[in-house]
Amino acid sequence: MTTTEKNKFIYNFKEGNRTLKNVLGGKGANLAEMTNLGLNIPQGFTITTETCLNYFIKPEKTMEELKPIVLQHIEELENITDKKFGDNKNPLLVSVRSGAPMSMPGMMDTVLNLGLNDQSVVGVATQTENPRFAYDSYRRFIQMFGDVVMGISDEKFERILNKHKRLKGRSAQDTDLEVSDLQKIITEYKALYEKEIGNQFPQDPIKQLFLSIEAVFKSWNNRRAITYRKINDIPDFGTAVNIQTMVFGNKGWNSATGVAFSRDPSTGEKKPFGEYLTNAQGEDVVAGIRTPKKLKEMKKEFPEIYDQLLNTLEELEKHYRDMQDIEFTIEDGQLFILQTRNGKRTPSAGVKIAVDMVKEGLVNKEEAIMSIDPKKISKLMFKSIDENSIIRVLARGINASPGAVSGIAIFDADTAEELANQGQKEIILIRPQTKPDDIHGLYASSGVLTQFGGKTSHAAVVARGMGKPAVVGAQDIEIDEENKEFRVGDTIVQEGEMITIDGTTGKIIEGKVPLVEPEIKGEFLELLRMADDIKRLGVRANADTPEDAQKALEFGADGIGLCRTEHMFMNPERLPVVQAMIMSRTKEERQEALDKLLPMQRGDFYEIFKIMEGKPVTIRLLDPPLHEFLPELALVMLESQELKMVNALSRSLLNITPLDKEITKKNKVISLIRSLSEENPMMGLRGCRLGIVWPEINEMQVKAIFQAACDLKKEGIEVIPEVMIPLIGMFSELQYVKSDLMKIAKETILRYGVDLDFKFGTMIEIPRAALTADEIAMEAEFFSFGTNDLTQMTYGFSRDDAESKFLPIYLNKEILKENPFDTIDQDGVGKLMRMAIKLGKGTRPELKCGICGEHGGEPNSIEFSHQIGLDYVSCSPFRIPVARIAAAHAVIKEKNNK
Amino acid sequence: MTTTEKNKFIYNFKEGNRTLKNVLGGKGANLAEMTNLGLNIPQGFTITTETCLNYFIKPEKTMEELKPIVLQHIEELENITDKKFGDNKNPLLVSVRSGAPMSMPGMMDTVLNLGLNDQSVVGVATQTENPRFAYDSYRRFIQMFGDVVMGISDEKFERILNKHKRLKGRSAQDTDLEVSDLQKIITEYKALYEKEIGNQFPQDPIKQLFLSIEAVFKSWNNRRAITYRKINDIPDFGTAVNIQTMVFGNKGWNSATGVAFSRDPSTGEKKPFGEYLTNAQGEDVVAGIRTPKKLKEMKKEFPEIYDQLLNTLEELEKHYRDMQDIEFTIEDGQLFILQTRNGKRTPSAGVKIAVDMVKEGLVNKEEAIMSIDPKKISKLMFKSIDENSIIRVLARGINASPGAVSGIAIFDADTAEELANQGQKEIILIRPQTKPDDIHGLYASSGVLTQFGGKTSHAAVVARGMGKPAVVGAQDIEIDEENKEFRVGDTIVQEGEMITIDGTTGKIIEGKVPLVEPEIKGEFLELLRMADDIKRLGVRANADTPEDAQKALEFGADGIGLCRTEHMFMNPERLPVVQAMIMSRTKEERQEALDKLLPMQRGDFYEIFKIMEGKPVTIRLLDPPLHEFLPELALVMLESQELKMVNALSRSLLNITPLDKEITKKNKVISLIRSLSEENPMMGLRGCRLGIVWPEINEMQVKAIFQAACDLKKEGIEVIPEVMIPLIGMFSELQYVKSDLMKIAKETILRYGVDLDFKFGTMIEIPRAALTADEIAMEAEFFSFGTNDLTQMTYGFSRDDAESKFLPIYLNKEILKENPFDTIDQDGVGKLMRMAIKLGKGTRPELKCGICGEHGGEPNSIEFSHQIGLDYVSCSPFRIPVARIAAAHAVIKEKNNK
Repeated sequence: MTTTEKNKFIYNFKEGNRTLKNVLGGKGANLAEMTNLGLNIPQGFTITTETCLNYFIKPEKTMEELKPIVLQHIEELENITDKKFGDNKNPLLVSVRSGAPMSMPGMMDTVLNLGLNDQSVVGVATQTENPRFAYDSYRRFIQMFGDVVMGISDEKFERILNKHKRLKGRSAQDTDLEVSDLQKIITEYKALYEKEIGNQFPQDPIKQLFLSIEAVFKSWNNRRAITYRKINDIPDFGTAVNIQTMVFGNKGWNSATGVAFSRDPSTGEKKPFGEYLTNAQGEDVVAGIRTPKKLKEMKKEFPEIYDQLLNTLEELEKHYRDMQDIEFTIEDGQLFILQTRNGKRTPSAGVKIAVDMVKEGLVNKEEAIMSIDPKKISKLMFKSIDENSIIRVLARGINASPGAVSGIAIFDADTAEELANQGQKEIILIRPQTKPDDIHGLYASSGVLTQFGGKTSHAAVVARGMGKPAVVGAQDIEIDEENKEFRVGDTIVQEGEMITIDGTTGKIIEGKVPLVEPEIKGEFLELLRMADDIKRLGVRANADTPEDAQKALEFGADGIGLCRTEHMFMNPERLPVVQAMIMSRTKEERQEALDKLLPMQRGDFYEIFKIMEGKPVTIRLLDPPLHEFLPELALVMLESQELKMVNALSRSLLNITPLDKEITKKNKVISLIRSLSEENPMMGLRGCRLGIVWPEINEMQVKAIFQAACDLKKEGIEVIPEVMIPLIGMFSELQYVKSDLMKIAKETILRYGVDLDFKFGTMIEIPRAALTADEIAMEAEFFSFGTNDLTQMTYGFSRDDAESKFLPIYLNKEILKENPFDTIDQDGVGKLMRMAIKLGKGTRPELKCGICGEHGGEPNSIEFSHQIGLDYVSCSPFRIPVARIAAAHAVIKEKNNK
Repeated sequence: MTTTEKNKFIYNFKEGNRTLKNVLGGKGANLAEMTNLGLNIPQGFTITTETCLNYFIKPEKTMEELKPIVLQHIEELENITDKKFGDNKNPLLVSVRSGAPMSMPGMMDTVLNLGLNDQSVVGVATQTENPRFAYDSYRRFIQMFGDVVMGISDEKFERILNKHKRLKGRSAQDTDLEVSDLQKIITEYKALYEKEIGNQFPQDPIKQLFLSIEAVFKSWNNRRAITYRKINDIPDFGTAVNIQTMVFGNKGWNSATGVAFSRDPSTGEKKPFGEYLTNAQGEDVVAGIRTPKKLKEMKKEFPEIYDQLLNTLEELEKHYRDMQDIEFTIEDGQLFILQTRNGKRTPSAGVKIAVDMVKEGLVNKEEAIMSIDPKKISKLMFKSIDENSIIRVLARGINASPGAVSGIAIFDADTAEELANQGQKEIILIRPQTKPDDIHGLYASSGVLTQFGGKTSHAAVVARGMGKPAVVGAQDIEIDEENKEFRVGDTIVQEGEMITIDGTTGKIIEGKVPLVEPEIKGEFLELLRMADDIKRLGVRANADTPEDAQKALEFGADGIGLCRTEHMFMNPERLPVVQAMIMSRTKEERQEALDKLLPMQRGDFYEIFKIMEGKPVTIRLLDPPLHEFLPELALVMLESQELKMVNALSRSLLNITPLDKEITKKNKVISLIRSLSEENPMMGLRGCRLGIVWPEINEMQVKAIFQAACDLKKEGIEVIPEVMIPLIGMFSELQYVKSDLMKIAKETILRYGVDLDFKFGTMIEIPRAALTADEIAMEAEFFSFGTNDLTQMTYGFSRDDAESKFLPIYLNKEILKENPFDTIDQDGVGKLMRMAIKLGKGTRPELKCGICGEHGGEPNSIEFSHQIGLDYVSCSPFRIPVARIAAAHAVIKEKNNK
């Protein structure tokens, strides 16, 4: 070799190793690594990424310098394989593949069988005793080369192929084509090539090779690849090119091809798993035309190779310290390993493998944790659709509350309740959208499906609160309430028909399908404990009911980070009292209703505190605008209009007006709803603003909290209440609201004569609160970032409207890389959070900071929460395991980056 | 005096001067100043603020030290006046007043006639030959002393007084009480005093005096005073106490009392103006029981004193360099000046006086400008209610669009239009709220009054755009649409009755009242030119129509800072085309409607550019959500329901369904409105988001802008278009929208073959835009702060909802000092603005920054805009003079602070 190491253009597989990924690309480095492990790899060589970069600066000079070195390496391959490039009898065939340091779509993928031409195809036919295979390979080579190297539209090749298939009969397959057909196709392919390119299809393998190498180089800078790099912040390090000898598993009955896993990818069990086909090529296994054999059958058929394969799997697993998925080929009784990679696995298998490997001493705990993608863990927490079942997806909506469930389609809340009372347990409530009036129907159903609304719509919020699956905003379904059915495309689903919804994925599925139950035990539990040992962040739960609190505890919550009191108001027994409270015209009337609510709320808090014994429980005071508890205006107006028309009719026919009283009542309700209705309720009279306008509501809630806490204290049970005042934007608001409530808290404690630790704090969910956090921390003992609202206001996005109207377009056009309601926007919202923490801790160094938006259960956001120094994240009970693992990831990544 | 200067407890009036405000308080310093000018001031002395502070540390010691010094000063007063404290014949009477360095409500105000007791009252009666005056003074002294010094509830005194008044007859006044009545009252007052305090009312004037001094000290630390200081950031510098000889203008016909101004406070003319009463006391002038005489009558009645008074006025005006308002008393032919202060004046008088004084060389231009409160200038810009007229205010609403106007009450848009077509020019449209459907009614009316909505409601925005007065959100009026009337309290206003609304103050007034026309000329013009010479900020106009542009130019705009294109869409001729555009189901249909709008928009821009020749015109692309252009959902639903019921009736009676087609049509509209309707439209599909979802709308607008600009360029007229993209929150949004529009702009310019300067920029109105302004400035050539929306999102306040539901409560409870929609919130919103300017200019130093929210016309916000380095403010044409003066203020204040 004439070049220095710095300018080394080519590494053969023996020269490289996996640490040279930046030089050889991922694929090249891996092939080199396996070669050096002593595995039988079809030999070849890799052109470095640096060569690619040189090519872009001086293309001609680079190719000129490259040529002799490539030819020298081809010669080496000829010597190793005892074959000859372009030979008519025993030709050396190679594959050419790109291989960047990071996996990248949009680049040239693969050219197989390079080296075939009109002569050598005859040689292969003779040698393999399989002329069909030889001509089919040649046909594929011309097509691949024409398409990926020369840029001829693949459709044009397919048109020729299809024409010949049609000649064989109406439903003919590729495999029905005979040698003579293939030869005709090859002739037409070559004619197409000449017409498109202006030259004949190159018969010289050397020419084929260099055209392919240049095509790989160029593909690095095609538009799709550039865009992909830009979006994913991948540097411009160029691509390597791998040239590798072809081997064939279809050379006869002493040849085979297959795939194998070092452990069972479905269960994680430590036993090899795989399938193979004798006298076949790789794509036959994938295509599923012949039924492959189980790996254990190989023990009889190829006993020596079977042992060799098992040893290889074990060796590779030990070497890569992860479960391996390999492709292999047996050519004439000789085993070749074509590829190894970390094997894909089901989430539960992943957990088992990680924990087993720690026990086996193969990896340490941190590595085991890092091998688990926290996002996938969530799949273990909900009922899911059995992956092996065949389903018919009718439509997709927004995945608003996770879990899959089947039930009969019911189109109104009353029927749902009635059927539930009759014992029907499987009900899916289907509504254009839900309102507080539908709450009894939601209670009665197993899941909810709506045509409108987003992740914060009433249906979504209530369903998540109840832990029931929900698919919302499924705009493709058209609900006909009158006829109690919905239409989607040509399908009509009528009342009583069974459907399945998957709130994890947003799918709406025909009929009842098999579901898989979630469970936390065994290795899963062990893994979570490992994560707990590593993580710094506390993980709390968003839990509104004793049932939620119980679940949260089971799933390992360190406390409750968000207990939303409004969900307690939505309870169907209480809603009328809440409505009476809202409708009251005087302070006295309001107080009367509140007096009824007090013992109910106290009871809720008592139960939750008791379950969470000794752990902090953050209770948010009433937050939503009051009209959320009232029926919809248009509905009441229509009802009133109906009454009026009946009245008018009665007057004209009978000269009586029997509905006067009813109408007056309706008019009162209409006028109240109108007076409470708002242009933009998200930014209207809610949160702490309610407490300023109607202090009695907050006062009742704080009484309930402290009475419950004091009761438990008297029983000797430890309680740590944290009162959270929502929607604070100014110091003066917090001061005003808190001073009143603090008095009630202290009076209650004094009256009970107990010793109780408690905190008053605030949500940080208004941009202004973050901007003036130094002032707010003068009154707040903790900050809980309400990142849902903070994201809404920082972006000026109303989530419901954005997700149904324009966010999909933003994501599609890549104006947004990710939905900021799923993953925290670190540049904007995150900047405000950092600012708030810095300002807040400047005023009060011991300030406790957490996050209680939905981001609290999302791995990237959890990592960010760790980075900016939050004390805890809070998420729905079912996300707690995800959060525990993500929190551990954050620590390990931080350590690894140091 | 035994104390050192440092511990000087007391200054007599001759010792002080106006620079000692911090020591003597405002009042004391002013009395000293006048004494030293040689004016005849009832002599007295001032206890220093420091003494007050000492009192709070060591009350007893301070009083002990203070007593001999006070007595020494009292002795001096006795010598000067030849009266004696507590004397039975010729008693020295004094007043005791607090006087802090800054005017402060909540503190003890005044005790008059101190020194009276059961004996000396007889002396006064004899001396003044007016026993009624003497006993009334004593009665008042006991009441004042009891109330403000000893804290006895004033109500208790009033109860006694009222009882005796009732005994004189049903409608008896104070003045009906005779000496014998007053003597009875005094006896009962003293009894009340003894009962409440436990001691007799003090007869010893020395005791009266020291109790009063201590009461003044204590009032500095009463709760209201502390709160006021806290809110207004006033330091705790203590209050001074002024003790001054009483003089009486009611000693006989050689005595008098009055007020005088050095110039006419109504017109500003340079001639003294005043009123006086002979043999009267100050409160008689104020009470208006006797008709006072004009100042010029004094020339005959008291010729010497008249000359003396005129000289005094001139001297004081020269000394204070401002028009003075004095109180004077003539006691036995001797003139005493009791008080001087800068005189209150009408806005137009203020302007004339300021400009005249510059011409007279009395003040320089900067002082003249600073003497004008910019807020008051706005009153010169609109029709206003004649201050001299007697009006009956029916109710108050939100002052949404300034100016006063009278007209007949009309309750629907159709009638308004019909009457206008018949020639009726005075119409007030009265609606619960307006919608685009009412637009023809708004055009036909002179003003609009709504029951609901805030300053950004449809009615408010459209009225401001049209320059018509509007009062909105007048919740006290109850509109009965059916009977075409509104009720407020017991008053009913029916269709056709005349009312007046004042959009400047929010008043709703019965009948037609005299109005005053605005004008800019003479001294007003001169003053504005002075301001222009001083100011650094550019002042642009928010102008949407050629008429607005014309006005803006007349009022001195440097350009247009905000031209809202949506108001052009609201034009009743265009609305149907806009609606067709929105309703279109295909891109082609939409394009067809847009093609119709293009020439209309081009025409608008052509006219505006032409008027603003050579000045920059910033055009904002379509901003509001599209459903703002559609009718209200509930309305269409009710209409549809009616049709259905008629249909159902027809079917049951006649077996026909004549309205099927109509119903289908309505249903389509309903379904469209539903699909466009949003939970929180403020944060929904609007602004640049519209341009991303339906690019054709923006494209049409940019075509119209550049075609109009190029047309004018070809005619040799200079045009500077600035295209403003609203609601940007991310760099990627701006990049996406701009790249498309930039292409259209360049293509158009190329096609016309002209040379055109233009800019593309963005509103900064989303918090995230401010947070990431460094990125956004990469694409934006200018930033225009949309502080209305920025305030909404930074606070999480929907303005409409906040102003009608809770902001009044916030202001009332002093949680907010000012409405952040009126005056920029410097701590929150302002922080974001500073951040955005710093980040933006970091990326692009030549970045032009302005403000185009309503704050652009508000003086405090203009000063802030100057401070943070904005290049211009933009406001409604009528606010331009205000802005020009406020901008000059900002420069002068900055200079004075250096």
